[in-house]
Amino acid sequence: MNSKYVIGLDFGTNSVRALIVDVAGGEEIATNVCDYAHGEAGIIIDPKDPDLARQHPEDYIRGTKACVQQALKEASSNKDFSPEQVIGIGVDTTGSTPMPVDESGEPLAFQKEFKDNPSAMAWLWKDHTGHAEAEEITALAAKMRPQYLAKCGGTYSAEWFWSKLLHCLRVSPDVVEAMYTWVECADWIPGFLTGTTHPDKVKRCICAAGHKAMFNPSWNGYPDVEFVGALDERLVRIRETLPDHAYNIADTAGSLTDAWSKELGLPAGIPVAVGAFDAHLGGVGCGIVPGVLVKIIGTSTCDMLVTPMDKDLPDIPGLCGIVPESILPGAYGLEAGQSAVGDIFNWYVNYINPGGDGKGSHEALAAGAEKLKPGESGLLGLDWHNGNRTVLVDQRLTGLLLGMTLHTTPAEIYRTLIESTAFGARTIIERFVEYGLKVDRVVNCGGISVKSPLVMQIYADVTGRAMEVSQSEQTCALGAAMSAAVVAGKANGGYDNFAEAAKAMTGVRDKKYVPNAKNKAVYDRLYKLYRQLHDIHGTKEYSENLFDLMKELLAIRDEVRK
Amino acid sequence: MNSKYVIGLDFGTNSVRALIVDVAGGEEIATNVCDYAHGEAGIIIDPKDPDLARQHPEDYIRGTKACVQQALKEASSNKDFSPEQVIGIGVDTTGSTPMPVDESGEPLAFQKEFKDNPSAMAWLWKDHTGHAEAEEITALAAKMRPQYLAKCGGTYSAEWFWSKLLHCLRVSPDVVEAMYTWVECADWIPGFLTGTTHPDKVKRCICAAGHKAMFNPSWNGYPDVEFVGALDERLVRIRETLPDHAYNIADTAGSLTDAWSKELGLPAGIPVAVGAFDAHLGGVGCGIVPGVLVKIIGTSTCDMLVTPMDKDLPDIPGLCGIVPESILPGAYGLEAGQSAVGDIFNWYVNYINPGGDGKGSHEALAAGAEKLKPGESGLLGLDWHNGNRTVLVDQRLTGLLLGMTLHTTPAEIYRTLIESTAFGARTIIERFVEYGLKVDRVVNCGGISVKSPLVMQIYADVTGRAMEVSQSEQTCALGAAMSAAVVAGKANGGYDNFAEAAKAMTGVRDKKYVPNAKNKAVYDRLYKLYRQLHDIHGTKEYSENLFDLMKELLAIRDEVRK
Repeated sequence: MNSKYVIGLDFGTNSVRALIVDVAGGEEIATNVCDYAHGEAGIIIDPKDPDLARQHPEDYIRGTKACVQQALKEASSNKDFSPEQVIGIGVDTTGSTPMPVDESGEPLAFQKEFKDNPSAMAWLWKDHTGHAEAEEITALAAKMRPQYLAKCGGTYSAEWFWSKLLHCLRVSPDVVEAMYTWVECADWIPGFLTGTTHPDKVKRCICAAGHKAMFNPSWNGYPDVEFVGALDERLVRIRETLPDHAYNIADTAGSLTDAWSKELGLPAGIPVAVGAFDAHLGGVGCGIVPGVLVKIIGTSTCDMLVTPMDKDLPDIPGLCGIVPESILPGAYGLEAGQSAVGDIFNWYVNYINPGGDGKGSHEALAAGAEKLKPGESGLLGLDWHNGNRTVLVDQRLTGLLLGMTLHTTPAEIYRTLIESTAFGARTIIERFVEYGLKVDRVVNCGGISVKSPLVMQIYADVTGRAMEVSQSEQTCALGAAMSAAVVAGKANGGYDNFAEAAKAMTGVRDKKYVPNAKNKAVYDRLYKLYRQLHDIHGTKEYSENLFDLMKELLAIRDEVRK
Repeated sequence: MNSKYVIGLDFGTNSVRALIVDVAGGEEIATNVCDYAHGEAGIIIDPKDPDLARQHPEDYIRGTKACVQQALKEASSNKDFSPEQVIGIGVDTTGSTPMPVDESGEPLAFQKEFKDNPSAMAWLWKDHTGHAEAEEITALAAKMRPQYLAKCGGTYSAEWFWSKLLHCLRVSPDVVEAMYTWVECADWIPGFLTGTTHPDKVKRCICAAGHKAMFNPSWNGYPDVEFVGALDERLVRIRETLPDHAYNIADTAGSLTDAWSKELGLPAGIPVAVGAFDAHLGGVGCGIVPGVLVKIIGTSTCDMLVTPMDKDLPDIPGLCGIVPESILPGAYGLEAGQSAVGDIFNWYVNYINPGGDGKGSHEALAAGAEKLKPGESGLLGLDWHNGNRTVLVDQRLTGLLLGMTLHTTPAEIYRTLIESTAFGARTIIERFVEYGLKVDRVVNCGGISVKSPLVMQIYADVTGRAMEVSQSEQTCALGAAMSAAVVAGKANGGYDNFAEAAKAMTGVRDKKYVPNAKNKAVYDRLYKLYRQLHDIHGTKEYSENLFDLMKELLAIRDEVRK
């Protein structure tokens, strides 16, 4: 009856999950998922515009109630557990997922006037409506503030804070006029649990601000007024509502309000940690420390690394972001990633579906692919079906498959798609190492790491590094729960820092994928060829390159489709 | 009852066809196909060696009897027809399909000692067992007799006469010792019909000799003794059995023997024309004349062009062959081709079969592909799944598909595969034009030209030229029948030359595929990109190219598979 528990809330693309974790040993004693009510699978879409993807903030509130209550109910079957033993709550969300709020911090979406206006909703991470604005911001920054771009891989994305705000201004100036400020759901959600959504009180997290909103202490926070005004004068007022300081996950957003404590049946006043993005807290949930690369492998990947802040870090070309304390307090957080991994395999299975359902399932293709030796198909691919996030930071790149003969089989192609993502993964690791960062271990989490031994073994063979797999299947929620344990503190049954929390609450599975030297030797040769294709199609390093080829194809496509 | 008829015999890979044609109007009044009895679908194979493909010469004899008798029976239902009105026979075959014969011209395969020895059979065109010997011959010719290579695109093929003979010597020296000479089935078949198989009498056709056996009048016929001896001393004896002169299809191989006339029920002594390869007589059956490109589109393509011999023709790099009179008397015959066309579409449907049988048929995919506009998929491909015959003459090239996104559909890929073969076709046409040859019209024949309006329209749009389709669906057999009409001569109810025969006996369909200017404009842009990929992967013209990339992949594949 001395056990203490923490709750991690993981706000995803389609649903929210509550995870209740035993602080002492990290045991996950209960979990519940609540689907969002609005839109299609929680996403408000526009049949006329495939780029549009929004969420209704009401879903965050209702979802929190439902999944926490249900998880507590489930946990109660455990005789050691009672809700009074919960000592804190942590929150992770997708991002950048910002939304407009009024002067009191209420979402505009809650006002009658705006309740059906998609511009007044939360602009989900994968909303790409602001792609033209992203290019505009990149171009302006290149001219006025190149330092802003150096921290985000050289290109500001359509998925991020300012692109979305600028696009909102262009399509719904009334929404921008009516909003007081623009806030990430990663900040607003801890805000509503703690009664701190008011713009004067809401704590902006460094994870969202640093990776997506061009916040950096080296230029005193958000982009300056001159820059923002050069984008559009009307944004200056919004810029002035943004604070000069941002917080990390060791900070408390506030205390759980009485109303919420009654609603959920939890102790009043327990701390709620400052939020962060799912991938970053996924890194925490995998026990990230300097030297450990965490790979979150799902439809796409996030590759997370931390390094102490005691020495300066060079800008690393092609990285999505380098932000102080975005993952762990006291360390630089480095985020890299692949724009599609599981999505490529799913495309092949769901869209191409070779041989039909009986033969084209992941299981059937993997069974065939497993029997093949590296190199024996003569195939090679580029994993760019959704662009390349790291190290090329170029969304206008596309997939490539080479080496087909009249005998090429579906399983050979499936294996080649896996290998192409493994080569992409190796390119990221090599970029880190090239810039002096240590990668002593690789810990994987996410669905594929658990479900596909084939993928994990190929990753080990291609990178020449052992692939470990996180014990938890809910590393993002676990990371959020760990932030709750840290903000609760040792005095209240939690921990004083993340090193202690990680030691107690995280771990890897016994099964470790160790590189096979013979396979590695073949993959070393194939990787050289991959890099040739990668560089000739993705860079201008070759004197006569194919850099413009994929782009010209896309330009033709877009023109023809118009 | 004044009508005259000719018979075309078309010896294919799996069967032989007899076609009975009305000389006056080209009407095809009867046809019959007889499958070969030996091996699998007529091909003697070796489960241990996928390169081996042989035919039993007995099948040529039995097949001739069966299909001619059956076709005559069918023709008899026509009241204007009686067998006495047949004035000649023509023969086309696959090739190079040579075989060993004894001093009397009998195949070694008919001798008890050799009856089960694959080396004593006819070495079918697609037998690739001599690939090492082909390289050896190419290397020796490059050193000793570069002029030999200049007429066959720079590379001597594993599919050809000397590679097969040299390989036969290496694996079955007893067969070479027992043979008197080595003869193409295109020569031996007219020989047995006319009692001229004896090595002193058999007429070697210029089509086989010139395209496959390095025969050229400019060096007085076959490769000289010094060259052949440098390959292997034991081949000199065989070389000395080869004549200095070769014949074209306006020449008579001989007269139908009494025995055969009784067997078939045909007039004794009617002329049998000198043979030629199927594709070349297919050109004739399409009414080839200077300025008309004939495309025979099946699993692969042959592209045939003729040009008058009154002025010298430069060597054209990358062409499979330039041979005087190999197609029409008095004209150079030029042969180009694509190593795979229908085979690529079949690979996609049969091996990949996207979505299973219901969705992955040619019909279903074509229906989807037809709805797409040029360029709208953003995809581009290289049609090298079986290497590239023209203009790169490189069997170690492989297929490539580029531009895939997470939304790419099976129909988009299907269309792209078609387009890639169309770009390959355009490259061949441009090579001809670049060297001063006229291409005023393009006449297509072969299954795809009749069955796929989609393919024909794309070919028109990509090349910017109208695609006409031959009236006949049996152009090879028709061409053979036309050669019978010419060797019979006007005096006997035939024709004195091929121009007259073509005028009377060939034609194109009313439906002509005319280029769509808008599509052509998009395809011009795509073709530029195709050429970039083509050149960077297939040539060394770029200062930094990917010439070695596909080859290195194949080297890795071969090593791994060993």
